Parts: sequence; structure tokens; C-alpha cells
Amino acid sequence: MNAVPLIARKRDGFALAPDQIEAFVAAYTAGDVPDYQAAAFLMAGFLRGFDADETAALTRAMLHSGDVLDLSDLPGIKVDKHSTGGVGDKISLLLAPLVAACGVPVPMISGRGLGHTGGTLDKLESIPGFRVGLSIDEYRQVLSELGAVMIGQTAEIAPADRKLYALRDVTATVESIPLIAASIMSKKLAEGIDALVLDVKTGSGAFMKEEKDARRLAETLVGIGRDFGKPTVALLTDMEGPLGRGIGNGPETAEATWLLRGETPAGGAADDVVELTLALAGEMLALGGVASSPEAGIEKAREALASGAAFERWVALVKRQGGDTAYLDDPTRLMGEPVAEVHAPEGAYGFVDAIDAHALGVAAVALGAGRARKEDAVDPRAGFVLNKTVGSPVAPGELLATVYASDATRADAAAVARAYTFAPTAPDSRPLVRARYDGVRWTDAASGGA
Amino acid sequence: MNAVPLIARKRDGFALAPDQIEAFVAAYTAGDVPDYQAAAFLMAGFLRGFDADETAALTRAMLHSGDVLDLSDLPGIKVDKHSTGGVGDKISLLLAPLVAACGVPVPMISGRGLGHTGGTLDKLESIPGFRVGLSIDEYRQVLSELGAVMIGQTAEIAPADRKLYALRDVTATVESIPLIAASIMSKKLAEGIDALVLDVKTGSGAFMKEEKDARRLAETLVGIGRDFGKPTVALLTDMEGPLGRGIGNGPETAEATWLLRGETPAGGAADDVVELTLALAGEMLALGGVASSPEAGIEKAREALASGAAFERWVALVKRQGGDTAYLDDPTRLMGEPVAEVHAPEGAYGFVDAIDAHALGVAAVALGAGRARKEDAVDPRAGFVLNKTVGSPVAPGELLATVYASDATRADAAAVARAYTFAPTAPDSRPLVRARYDGVRWTDAASGGA
Repeated sequence: MNAVPLIARKRDGFALAPDQIEAFVAAYTAGDVPDYQAAAFLMAGFLRGFDADETAALTRAMLHSGDVLDLSDLPGIKVDKHSTGGVGDKISLLLAPLVAACGVPVPMISGRGLGHTGGTLDKLESIPGFRVGLSIDEYRQVLSELGAVMIGQTAEIAPADRKLYALRDVTATVESIPLIAASIMSKKLAEGIDALVLDVKTGSGAFMKEEKDARRLAETLVGIGRDFGKPTVALLTDMEGPLGRGIGNGPETAEATWLLRGETPAGGAADDVVELTLALAGEMLALGGVASSPEAGIEKAREALASGAAFERWVALVKRQGGDTAYLDDPTRLMGEPVAEVHAPEGAYGFVDAIDAHALGVAAVALGAGRARKEDAVDPRAGFVLNKTVGSPVAPGELLATVYASDATRADAAAVARAYTFAPTAPDSRPLVRARYDGVRWTDAASGGA
Repeated sequence: MNAVPLIARKRDGFALAPDQIEAFVAAYTAGDVPDYQAAAFLMAGFLRGFDADETAALTRAMLHSGDVLDLSDLPGIKVDKHSTGGVGDKISLLLAPLVAACGVPVPMISGRGLGHTGGTLDKLESIPGFRVGLSIDEYRQVLSELGAVMIGQTAEIAPADRKLYALRDVTATVESIPLIAASIMSKKLAEGIDALVLDVKTGSGAFMKEEKDARRLAETLVGIGRDFGKPTVALLTDMEGPLGRGIGNGPETAEATWLLRGETPAGGAADDVVELTLALAGEMLALGGVASSPEAGIEKAREALASGAAFERWVALVKRQGGDTAYLDDPTRLMGEPVAEVHAPEGAYGFVDAIDAHALGVAAVALGAGRARKEDAVDPRAGFVLNKTVGSPVAPGELLATVYASDATRADAAAVARAYTFAPTAPDSRPLVRARYDGVRWTDAASGGA
């Protein structure tokens, strides 16, 4: 194909026909359009935008560049959750077994961490033996047996997205809402889901720092889901501070496990993690047809958490995917040695006013808990446990956080301390779930939302 | 270098520091920045623009990517002319010997034709034996002997421009005024000139169809020239219709030679060619310090044309560069056989109202007189002679134009006929030189300009 006229049209601000976009992506994936033409196209699209039809076409092109799983022979409405990524976001580890325990199948294909946010695959692999690289046959088998399965993206899923994403990464064209949305949705739609819940994060620790951008992303994602006939709901959630107590793969997996066991995690209570897990579970159970409303779903999920049914499913899932369940009986084993303590500085009388999630994410990467580049290895035991969270009372010298690592020399307690700010009075509490979008309207937390 | 932050800044609409631009272009030329990053950068720059400082930095980076000739040891103020390209534009062939004959050295490095416009090198090569590929030593020698020299761009001149231009061509980033201006000026500044006159064309046969774009290009070009300490003047000239009678390499070279001989070219008088040649020569003589004003320069040039001094210099130049001067004594030999005649259609009573220069340029390419792609060969004898030009009285059946070619089967008389439109009354005459820009102000033809 001659890509130049198509690049020129996008450059000049015109919308392209869906079949033009699909042909372009197909030719690029096949190697018939070179990287430099795709780069010019991406930059033109970044600056000129893509409308809803173009975004759907981008999604469709990437979706059909590889295998699209068909789980329709398995019973139940298959529902997955996708988070746009945050610091301390271990929700998937609780959510998949919890929702499965309530009767909704969860076919979950996740990614690895990159930059300041973690990835579910890395968290799962902090459990010795856990295999995320199942074949598609095994994936179907585990889902069929346990109602949940958690794997990594296979090479056969959306190869066009992988190729385009790699190019976007080196051409300053990542932060485009239509491109981000098409990338996410092409992978999710390839999983064989029937419905989807999105956790779109906003705040300093999220990719979308501005709420208006996060809302636009949520609308775009939900719009695509509906275009493809998959009921999709988005929750807009707070990521000003980190979620819960643990940051890093082992500490987060430990925290999730403690919460599934009904125990208090290292560092202290993590009500925010439970609240967000239940909110997302409520949506999934409603979409999955086992609850009459998200609110009813939340109640059902709360019971499954309290009864131990969710934990049982978690143990079964870890075992089925090769993980050593002894670590689930003693979650501290998932964390490294405590190698440093972070104490409140002079003058820190009063309360923790804020914790900079982005700064903690960056510090976790420096510690070895995350990746600066895709090729980097992670230390599964490294991370932080927050002994004080936003709103905790504090006095100088008190323990703020504990650093865990395999390699003590990489611990930088000062970097963790700098992420904390203090105030003489407790900060106003902010809703964790700020708003909900169902494809038709936004419902804000203040006006009685989720 | 890590190009991503720089691409992102341009993408976000910020001006880059000159040294950032120079480093980027240098790294791209060296192969340290890949094509896909340069493509994203070019598209971001195309859409966000480059300010005057950035454009100067782009020019400087491309200029210094290769050899910059130094002609300061040769006497005189060296002045060149650059045209943004039109149909039938054989002005350089008359201008170089004419200005040299008046005592101003003209070191001229030209390009080949591409698309609907011709190139000076192809025109020169229509004279058997003419060598445009002189070494730099020969170039200096011929300039020193004859006060003029006409060659092609060597591989050593502005290699970054060549590499970037090739990339722009396949990424829909050609039509950017700062990029066009930097490309032109980097090559011109590398020639060793002291001053420059620009013929910026506007109208249907020009690259800049809109006068406002042409004015902006002229301002940008002149601004760069002044930034580099080279006095530069631009004439904004009309390219709604073709220039003169001949279109195609042989026919144009023949026409230029007839005019230098003081004879009427095939097809009839070509006052427009003479007028534009004199206008540009006047500017060059004033810049070259041999005339007190452009107007005085025009008078001086008119005398050199009438006295035969310009023709003598043309013969000497062609001979010195290896051309067979017998063709200059009988210019018809430069054209092919007349293979078709184009006649006025039924109903064409009155006058030629307009001739679509772009359509004729495209027809000339189809005939073999030009190149659709860089790799194409040209037929040096192919082209058109216009027997009727804009404003000529006409009646059905009269001869409009004659088609010349080595290969008669490629002649498409109907395409030439379609370029003509007729009207019952003569069209208003338009000024050929619409305006003049000297770096400070525009002087329009209507208000007493050039």
C-alpha cells in the first residue's frame, strides 16, 4: 500500500475510514509499511486525534492481528477487570479468586510492570513455582476447573499492538488516549471475555494525572467495549497515594494473601484495598449475572471474603498454576529481609498529609522491585511496607515504612521518607472510587455512586 | 542521544534550543537516531511549526553536515539565484551568463526536475556533451575563468538535507515552510555565495499555490539568509500559467538560447521570460555591487542582452563545460521531432484566458520530459512549444501548441488542449513580479515594486 496519502490525511486533520485504518495496521504488522511511516502516522494521530470510529477500527485491526480466544463453550458470563496501573495495586490478586468464588468466571491475562507501576504477572511470580506461561489449552482447562485463571499475554495475542506499542515507546507517542484505549481493549477483547470492568486511575501515581484525562480515557474504553458488544463499566479511582500497605511484588502478594485470609497485613489495616476490591467485584458480579446490582454484588463478595471462600479459591488457583501454597500460609515468606526502616523526621508532628505514590513507585524501581526497562529483572522480594498511611497520626522518630530487599545496598530510606508529607491536622478524606461510568452517564461518588 | 524527550517537546509545541536541533540532525545524519524517530520529529515539527531560531538551527545543522565551499579567494561578490520551481522556468540558463557578463560571479549549483516542474541540470544536459558533474576544483576554475559555473549538487554538500528530504518524501512531511526553507538555504549557503536572490513562485503551477504561503516562504528564506550574514532578496512571481513558450528540457534550452541570441523563439515572443530574467538580474547586479539599484541593474542587464555579451558568455560556458556549441547556433536541434499538433477546439472564439501550468507539467512528465520518480530517465528532446499563450487571440482549429518527443506514442495532444481555457474577451494582464521582499518590507508591484 502507498501509506503517504493516508498519513497526509491524518496530518491534515481528517478522519480516516475504518477500512483505511485497518489496512494500514495490517500492512504495518506484515512489514509492508516501514517503521518510519508508522511513526509519522502515530505522531499525526497523536496531535490530530482519532474519533470513536477510528479508535474502534484501530482496536479491531490490532485485535484481529492475532488469535482471538473463544470461550463460548465454557459456561457462565466471563468477566475480567483491567486497571490502568497504579502503585501498590494488588487488587487483581484478590479479585480473581473472589469473583470466581462467587460464580463468575474470570479469564485474566495480565502484563508485567514497567516504569513506576507494578504488573500482576510479576506479583504472581513472587510465589515460588507459579507459572504464568500456560498454553491456551491449559488456560481454558484451569478456567473451566476453578472459574479463574491468571496468565501472561501470549505471542499470539494482538501482535500488532505489541509492535505499535514498541514504536510508540520510542517516538513520544505513548500518551494518546485513543491509542492507549485501543491498545488496552484489543488485548482484553482477545481474551474471550463477555464483559469488562475497568479501574481507571487518576492522581499523581497514575498515568493519567488529570481527572479530565482519566474520564476521557474511561469514556473511550467503555465506548470501545460497547462497540464490540461487550458490556463494560469503568470506575474512576484515586491514585494520589499508594493503595494499601505493600509496594513491590512480594509485599503486595503477601498483603493480598493476608486480606484474603481475613488477617491484618504487615504494616496495618488496608481498608482501601478491601473497599476497591469489593467495588470492582460488585461490578463484575452484576455484569456476570449473579448479582442484581453492583451493590448486591458487593454484599455477595463481602460474604465470600469473610467466609474464606475467596481464600480457598486463591489457594486452589495458586496450587493449580504450580505455586507453592506454603507461602500462602505464611505470607511473610513472600517478602525479603527488612533491610531498612524509615522514620518520621524532626518536626513531623500531627498526621501524614499525603504520600507521593509516583515517588514511591520510582523508589521501588531503584530498589529492584520494578523495571526501568523491559529487559530488566525484578527482585521478587523487594519493596516497602507502609507502617503509616495517609491520615495516620505521626510524631518525629516514629516508624513510617520498612524496606525489604534481597540486596540491602539498594535500599534508599531517604527516598521513601521524602514521599511523605505531614500536617498538623488530619487531611480531608477523599473517596477512593471517585465516579462510575456505565457508557451512558457518569455517577460521581458525592452524588451516591459506587 | 535519547531523542524521545526532544520529540516530546516539539510534539507539545515548545521551541527547541538551537543546539538541541543541531545535535538531533547531526545524530540522525550519523545514523545514531533511527528513521522512525526522525519521522516522528518531522511530523511533530510539521504540525507544531519551527520558529525563526529553530529554522536557522535546522539550516545550520544541514549546512554543516557536509562541505561548505569557500570562494572568498576569488574576486567579486558571488551571487546566485534560486527558484522554488515552476513550469517552463528556464530563467537560470539566461541569467547565469547574463549576470556574469555584467561582472558579477554566479556560482550556481542546481537540481534535477521532480514531479511537474523541471530542473536546471536536466535542461543543461539537453545540450550534448554538457557536463554538470564537475569536481569542486573544476567548479572554482570555471567560475574564475568565466564568472559563471553551473553544476549539480555533489555528495559532499548538505548530506543531512538529502537524508531528511528522502524521509520527508515518504512520511508526508514535505510541505512545511520551515523545512522547505532550511532545505533550500542549507544547499545554497554551502555553495560559497555572498548574496542570494530568490524567485518564489505562486499560483497553480507552483508548489505554493496560495500567495500567503509563498509570502511566508519568502520571508523565511530571506530571514535565514540574513541570519547567516548573506544579503538576500526575494521576488514573488506569478506561476498561474507556464513561463514562455517551451516546456521540457530541450525546448526550454532552445528558447533560452534564442532569447540570448536576440531572436524570436519557436512558438513566438517570450516577453515574460525576458522580463523575469531582467528583474532577477537587476537584483543580482545590485547585490553584486555593480549597479546602484535593481532598476539600474535591469538597464545594465538589458544592454548586455542586446549587445550579445550575454550570449557570448553562454557559448563560452557551454563550451567550457563540454557542451556542443553547434546546438546553440541552431537551437531547433535541441528539440525532438514535432510529433503532434494541438488545435483550438470548437467554440474557442476569442482569447486564451488561462493555461493550467500544473496540468502541462504533468503532461510533460507523461511525455517523458520529466520524472515521476527520482530514478526515472528523461527524454531530453521531449516537450511542448506553446504557439498560443495567455491573452493570445484564438479561433477554432488554430494551432495552440506543438508536441516534441523522441517517442511519438507518448504524445497526448488532448491533455495539452485541456490545459487551455478560452474567453470571449482578453484576460486582465497580471503582473509577473507580484512583489519584492528585502528582509524588511514587502513592495507590491501595484505600488511601484520591481
